[in-house]
Amino acid sequence: MRPSAILESALYVTDLAAAERFYREVLGLEQIARAEDRHVFFQCGRGVLLLFNAEATRQQPEPGAKLPVPPHGTAGQGHLCFSATADEIERWKAHLTEGGVAVEADFHWPAKPGQAKGGRSIYFRDPSGNSLEFAEPKIWGL
Amino acid sequence: MRPSAILESALYVTDLAAAERFYREVLGLEQIARAEDRHVFFQCGRGVLLLFNAEATRQQPEPGAKLPVPPHGTAGQGHLCFSATADEIERWKAHLTEGGVAVEADFHWPAKPGQAKGGRSIYFRDPSGNSLEFAEPKIWGL
Repeated sequence: MRPSAILESALYVTDLAAAERFYREVLGLEQIARAEDRHVFFQCGRGVLLLFNAEATRQQPEPGAKLPVPPHGTAGQGHLCFSATADEIERWKAHLTEGGVAVEADFHWPAKPGQAKGGRSIYFRDPSGNSLEFAEPKIWGL
Repeated sequence: MRPSAILESALYVTDLAAAERFYREVLGLEQIARAEDRHVFFQCGRGVLLLFNAEATRQQPEPGAKLPVPPHGTAGQGHLCFSATADEIERWKAHLTEGGVAVEADFHWPAKPGQAKGGRSIYFRDPSGNSLEFAEPKIWGL
């Protein structure tokens, strides 16, 4: 047995309202849920991006809760990378820069066997300081 | 513009060797990279799961580095969910239990419109305490 795919990826944010605006308006993701002060969820392709307020998710579920989701929650700067083509990365860089979002790094990875050129990655931060990336799937041979 | 997919999802672990064994041997994921004391990476479908030692990834890249990956790193219990069918979840539960991994929660979500029954989720922990889940994609209408 082997997991076939990642369904949910999570980041923790310190300001849910700012995160909601950033992921929806700057990144254009489709928002699918919001629970006041606890979380904002977005669909992304066949996966879901979960943005949590760790102060809320660290709470133990109530005894006898019907949906006893176990506690979790981190502090610090997480990381997540979105898939993008070379053309899209170029356009994302312009879009982020125009929106006042600094592109913190921009480089090509070493070429893998059979590749003329390695894939490109650009890095930027969400309002909570999480390290976000757009990268070509070929950096992983995908 | 809208990101088409999540390419990389990250968790932070306190013991890379224990994490490597767990994700490879208990979950059966395909390991694609290991950098001593910094990270272990696994392929999962069309995505990549990154397990990091935050003490290493919080370091600033060297000035002039060719691959200036920005620092990141969290402390605490993160969350990630793998996609699984109802049959697979049943088998994962047996597999985890046989391997001495406690299933911390096991429930069905409320049915969405058009569903006879909501999707099932099971939750367990990796050796660093991250909250892992197997869930049916239909919990998100996927």
